[in-house]
Amino acid sequence: MQPRGRFITFEGGEGAGKSTQVRRLADRLSAAGLAAAATREPGGSPGAEEIRELLIHGETARWDATTETLLHFAARRDHLTKTVWPQLERGCWVVCDRFADSTRAYQGAAGADPALIETLYARTVGDFAPDLTLILDLPVDLGLARAAARQAGGARYEAMGAAFHEDLRRRFLAIAEAEPDRCRIIDASGGAETVAERVWQAVASRLPVPR
Amino acid sequence: MQPRGRFITFEGGEGAGKSTQVRRLADRLSAAGLAAAATREPGGSPGAEEIRELLIHGETARWDATTETLLHFAARRDHLTKTVWPQLERGCWVVCDRFADSTRAYQGAAGADPALIETLYARTVGDFAPDLTLILDLPVDLGLARAAARQAGGARYEAMGAAFHEDLRRRFLAIAEAEPDRCRIIDASGGAETVAERVWQAVASRLPVPR
Repeated sequence: MQPRGRFITFEGGEGAGKSTQVRRLADRLSAAGLAAAATREPGGSPGAEEIRELLIHGETARWDATTETLLHFAARRDHLTKTVWPQLERGCWVVCDRFADSTRAYQGAAGADPALIETLYARTVGDFAPDLTLILDLPVDLGLARAAARQAGGARYEAMGAAFHEDLRRRFLAIAEAEPDRCRIIDASGGAETVAERVWQAVASRLPVPR
Repeated sequence: MQPRGRFITFEGGEGAGKSTQVRRLADRLSAAGLAAAATREPGGSPGAEEIRELLIHGETARWDATTETLLHFAARRDHLTKTVWPQLERGCWVVCDRFADSTRAYQGAAGADPALIETLYARTVGDFAPDLTLILDLPVDLGLARAAARQAGGARYEAMGAAFHEDLRRRFLAIAEAEPDRCRIIDASGGAETVAERVWQAVASRLPVPR
């Protein structure tokens, strides 16, 4: 029987380079001979991608923080049951662009009750957790400048001002501090190649990558 | 200052005539000189109607019972914050086609954890509850025959077989038994006019309708 795969999540604010690093890590794991897949949240399964559409379009204040938290967990539950858990069962390593720490940081910053978030996690995700979480960290002004330059998604949050993003950064760093076994902070201020090497060292030092 | 309005919910299985009775009751309350509005779940606000689209279309097993429960509470939270609570604050009587008892009955029958449902209720609805819940009850074969004749919504559940609908009916009756102060069972086997009169008697005997 195949050993269960590993679940690696990338977290961080806007412009940290998460999607690039997710792709690079999945490619490098594949090159190392492992079954590896890249996915993302919200989304990653047909149903969750539909929920994503509700979350990323429309006005910033379209949903209150509680409703938004429920939608993120609905998308997460669908993603886990349809995509992530079956892939891990088959022995695949799954690399995910955002997971529950983003709900903790973003919806927490928007005012959602932390107890609601943890209750939802316990009752809909259970005792499942990432084997490793890489928090891509960089100064807020640099992240926002990068995000503005690429003109990509996240425009909704990019509009929210530096204080919001400083709060987000503090929340991600607090998560890393509270869960040092699961989380590793990665300095994301360098070029993509440099950051990818830091990511690879963090993965290789934490998880035994079969050779 | 206006007194807070009343919140009256209609519950029951397929073909019980809920939407007809919701409209009739709202009309009769209006005719009695009250501000009254009819609404429905899932839906009742622009965001919740979009979530409704995700819930009522697609295959029966599209979402697992947990994901579906999360989507229902996301829609409910949006409906309450954007529509129901503001209307009640303005003194309006709100008559709603389905509410949390439908989640308890339908998602419960589909296997959702009752503790998840009650936790979500407590954390996203709080201590708010209907002033009166009217459970339209009729034999399953009659309800399914009516539902088939009108060819309307609910087709997803109509396909699920008599045993599922018997289970649903038992769940609604159990809710009424457990909460006799809030719930009243209405015999829905007569014509619309007859049922409307039973509904009106139940409302007038429980809630002081201002004259």
